[in-house]
Amino acid sequence: MMEQKKKNLDQINKIRKNTNTTRRATVKKIENILYKSFKVLDKGFIRVIDYMGDDSSIVQAARVSYGKGTKKINQDKNLINYLISHRHSTPFEMNEIKFHVKLPIFVARQWIRHRTANVNEYSARYSILDSEFYIPNKKNMQAQSKSNNQGREQQLNDIESKQYLGIIKKNSKHAFSDYRELLNEDDGGKTLDKNKNGVARELARMVLPLNAYTEWYWKIDLHNLMHFLSLRFDYHAQYEIRVYAEVMLDILKKWVPLTYEAFISHRLENISLSKHGIEFIKNLIHGKKNNKIKISKREEDELKKKFGII
Amino acid sequence: MMEQKKKNLDQINKIRKNTNTTRRATVKKIENILYKSFKVLDKGFIRVIDYMGDDSSIVQAARVSYGKGTKKINQDKNLINYLISHRHSTPFEMNEIKFHVKLPIFVARQWIRHRTANVNEYSARYSILDSEFYIPNKKNMQAQSKSNNQGREQQLNDIESKQYLGIIKKNSKHAFSDYRELLNEDDGGKTLDKNKNGVARELARMVLPLNAYTEWYWKIDLHNLMHFLSLRFDYHAQYEIRVYAEVMLDILKKWVPLTYEAFISHRLENISLSKHGIEFIKNLIHGKKNNKIKISKREEDELKKKFGII
Amino acid sequence: MMEQKKKNLDQINKIRKNTNTTRRATVKKIENILYKSFKVLDKGFIRVIDYMGDDSSIVQAARVSYGKGTKKINQDKNLINYLISHRHSTPFEMNEIKFHVKLPIFVARQWIRHRTANVNEYSARYSILDSEFYIPNKKNMQAQSKSNNQGREQQLNDIESKQYLGIIKKNSKHAFSDYRELLNEDDGGKTLDKNKNGVARELARMVLPLNAYTEWYWKIDLHNLMHFLSLRFDYHAQYEIRVYAEVMLDILKKWVPLTYEAFISHRLENISLSKHGIEFIKNLIHGKKNNKIKISKREEDELKKKFGII
Amino acid sequence: MMEQKKKNLDQINKIRKNTNTTRRATVKKIENILYKSFKVLDKGFIRVIDYMGDDSSIVQAARVSYGKGTKKINQDKNLINYLISHRHSTPFEMNEIKFHVKLPIFVARQWIRHRTANVNEYSARYSILDSEFYIPNKKNMQAQSKSNNQGREQQLNDIESKQYLGIIKKNSKHAFSDYRELLNEDDGGKTLDKNKNGVARELARMVLPLNAYTEWYWKIDLHNLMHFLSLRFDYHAQYEIRVYAEVMLDILKKWVPLTYEAFISHRLENISLSKHGIEFIKNLIHGKKNNKIKISKREEDELKKKFGII
Repeated sequence: MMEQKKKNLDQINKIRKNTNTTRRATVKKIENILYKSFKVLDKGFIRVIDYMGDDSSIVQAARVSYGKGTKKINQDKNLINYLISHRHSTPFEMNEIKFHVKLPIFVARQWIRHRTANVNEYSARYSILDSEFYIPNKKNMQAQSKSNNQGREQQLNDIESKQYLGIIKKNSKHAFSDYRELLNEDDGGKTLDKNKNGVARELARMVLPLNAYTEWYWKIDLHNLMHFLSLRFDYHAQYEIRVYAEVMLDILKKWVPLTYEAFISHRLENISLSKHGIEFIKNLIHGKKNNKIKISKREEDELKKKFGII
Repeated sequence: MMEQKKKNLDQINKIRKNTNTTRRATVKKIENILYKSFKVLDKGFIRVIDYMGDDSSIVQAARVSYGKGTKKINQDKNLINYLISHRHSTPFEMNEIKFHVKLPIFVARQWIRHRTANVNEYSARYSILDSEFYIPNKKNMQAQSKSNNQGREQQLNDIESKQYLGIIKKNSKHAFSDYRELLNEDDGGKTLDKNKNGVARELARMVLPLNAYTEWYWKIDLHNLMHFLSLRFDYHAQYEIRVYAEVMLDILKKWVPLTYEAFISHRLENISLSKHGIEFIKNLIHGKKNNKIKISKREEDELKKKFGII
Repeated sequence: MMEQKKKNLDQINKIRKNTNTTRRATVKKIENILYKSFKVLDKGFIRVIDYMGDDSSIVQAARVSYGKGTKKINQDKNLINYLISHRHSTPFEMNEIKFHVKLPIFVARQWIRHRTANVNEYSARYSILDSEFYIPNKKNMQAQSKSNNQGREQQLNDIESKQYLGIIKKNSKHAFSDYRELLNEDDGGKTLDKNKNGVARELARMVLPLNAYTEWYWKIDLHNLMHFLSLRFDYHAQYEIRVYAEVMLDILKKWVPLTYEAFISHRLENISLSKHGIEFIKNLIHGKKNNKIKISKREEDELKKKFGII
Repeated sequence: MMEQKKKNLDQINKIRKNTNTTRRATVKKIENILYKSFKVLDKGFIRVIDYMGDDSSIVQAARVSYGKGTKKINQDKNLINYLISHRHSTPFEMNEIKFHVKLPIFVARQWIRHRTANVNEYSARYSILDSEFYIPNKKNMQAQSKSNNQGREQQLNDIESKQYLGIIKKNSKHAFSDYRELLNEDDGGKTLDKNKNGVARELARMVLPLNAYTEWYWKIDLHNLMHFLSLRFDYHAQYEIRVYAEVMLDILKKWVPLTYEAFISHRLENISLSKHGIEFIKNLIHGKKNNKIKISKREEDELKKKFGII
């Protein structure tokens, strides 16, 4: 496995050395990191494999331009801001980015629910998987949340964490050993028992647990990437997928800085007030009482927090 | 678990007793089986939850009709045949069907790659999964195919099968016990150790293997259902997903018999000849030699088999 | 044409007389209006042709239920409200509705930009179009907006309206006469000059103006319908498409009343505050000055209006 | 208008002079033509604005590679051929191409039916359209087909063509003059009557005929581009859209030559035999009679033609 990792790194270094000339829009900050691995979780990563367009391509498409389409930087910025805040999504669909991602299977299962992307996954029907499993950090070993059915809460104490991590590690180890036995192969790919057949790969894989790592190429347009990120930055999102979103947000900032800024302001750090929420805030501003507003407890709490009301 | 199954069956029986009147197109043969479970694999199932349209709805949409749109049964049949054979997909998109499916996770991972469907999956972040794992039949325990990297071939002998099935069963059992220990709950949901916290559900689930069963609601239009079926009936498709496709094909036949017939003839039992394949067959018909045709070995073999040439 | 209209109405009346029994979820208020034409603009309409699911189907899918899935009406209502306000879109994708719509071509061109729907359009390559053109009401004859590049503003005066309507009517009339001449057919379909060939329909149609009416079957899931409606109710949307959205909103209310209510509160009458907008409102609440906030003039005006600030 | 054209050309020439260095895959033959206009019909064009990937990117994605992913040219070619002939579409979705297209509205209306693409269209709500209308060549002035309801057949004679072209030209000219009058502007954008308001642009445009030209940016992945082309090369496709497909096919050849070759052989010049068609050909090969085969007349004719049977 060490060997495989070295081989992968060699390939990455080799491809990073190539340069070509192009008439296309290029982004320096992305060129600098192209093909590089950004580590996520304990054994996962994200790499940018390719990209199409920059901030000015959005403007160019919005204007259906013959040339570059951009005017002064300030005009471009205002247009992008306008497009994002008014939900004009089509110009952002004109940019694309392609990632190579290594991620645990249970994360992949959430991720794939975004259907507006292109995916090629490494197939455990064709190929044999390595012994790579996600083992959480102690600080991420948390108990079930009491208030939120789908979340987790306070960190487990040291003794609990250690014990539970032991179970996870042992489970991963045993599962991998079962997998190899079913394949009738050792870790190096050598046949274990020459007098026996192994089970077909497409069957053997089914003993692997959901924390096994998989890999895929994932391509998405800028509009849908922002949609993916806005969902994955929600406080309901599972930690193990949010860390991937964080790396992608950094990449977004390098790639399309004007769009990034508008996205932060209007989509990540915005707030949506319902009809009743508007009434609630209106009353606050005008010093009226709020005892007749049909606002849910959850929304009220959220608003109070967001607007700094005791 | 037995108890849960009884409860589910009660719910199904209860909902099957309801009837309403409607002006919509209805299909008797589907009404008869609505909500019923059709068993697939050892613990999986498919149930039809809802449907929209029948054969005549396709005709009605193709004609943008004010009324029912259908003429004589023979005209409808010819139109449907024409639409399928000429790849006019939009009229078939006008019908929808909704399934409730129980399936192993590794099957779900292949299935979800069809993006043109709607899915709601049972979430192991919210809820605790039951001890249900796919254990293959002995006859499906097969060795890796030598000719096809992604397939399986001859059945394993009895001794091998027994041994490998033992590994799979033990793996499932241990994984489930690890899962419960991480949750700090026994099978009945009782806390195992009151002085400890369990791990959050979204984390605990990651020790479960890929043969654990999951469930989802899956809705798709008729055009995309046929596309899904044609891919899943390919000889490359894995046995464990093909059996689901078989049940769905039976349902298709009940639902839209004219479409089913055209689908079988033009999409499931058809053959596509490449430019070189056409040349090859042309020569055969005209008694010419085929020694200069640039046809691949694989295509030649396929053609010979399909056209009964020694 | 009068004759054609009578024939259409006969067909509608005939199909409305059919009733069947079904085990599927049905909605009385939709059954009552099924197949009926609701007039839109001067010659357009919307008819509901089919539907799948009701409010409880959303709950059923969200819970991946074996039975009906609904509990008390209040619990269902809260769940639907929660799903809408937290952007959980998949359960709403489990309901479908199919419309037959008659609409001017320039409206159809905007409408079709929503790609997540299924469409069968009446084809002017196959069939010959009737002499039906959208002629606006006098009150909708408006001048170009000065502040909004894509909108219209104050009503034209009587003399202007009359004159401009005259141009539109004459244009439609002449275009239709050119169309018929190209086809070498009169209004009744009789050949005009037996010694000449007409031009193919697919070519002849190109002299028709964008206010000619077309028809289509349009099917969409509930989630995407709400997205369509929220965009089409935006004050930027053109009047001629908004009137179709209004009829569909009425239908939505009949179909899924709980969803309708949540949609109104969280999507149609909500407001999204940007990072800077939040700061602005926060300062207002706490009596602080707003002179350092980087809020756009447009957002400031919008907020002031929405929150009743002078 | 001459002036506008010169301005457009200047912009194109300017942007073509820029070159950048990149680590991304580049394709020389596409770089050479980047931004250039290829004329289609009388006033339309296609320009490549951007692209992502080359033949090797397909291989790289199929293998989920760390480096370039390609091996020997022959291995790449075989893999691409295999992927196309076995309908593995996802690796081809990893390449993208972005076009700027100018096309008549009736062509745009057919084109947009392909929903798996991204579009930004020049808006006649924001901007005023130029006097540009599609006027067919005499050789494309054809009569309605007798055998094919949606097609055209033999060329009209000189007298007919001239007369009909006269109608089309006059129609376009009058429509444009009506449009200008509604806007209360002359061709140069000067107000016609200072004492009158014009009609809003979003309304005025509705007198324009379907042969008016529009423009859009259109971006699509390679898999869907091939699907688009295969439908548009069908003999049922209208001439006016097929000519655009032809230019795009040339571009495809320059961009991904290995994919192009496989596409031609397996998708453009292939043939699909139905169950009955297979039986028919089988009998021919084996010298048996075909009198009991339930093959449609149309399919029989098609097969006879394709396989050179009298």
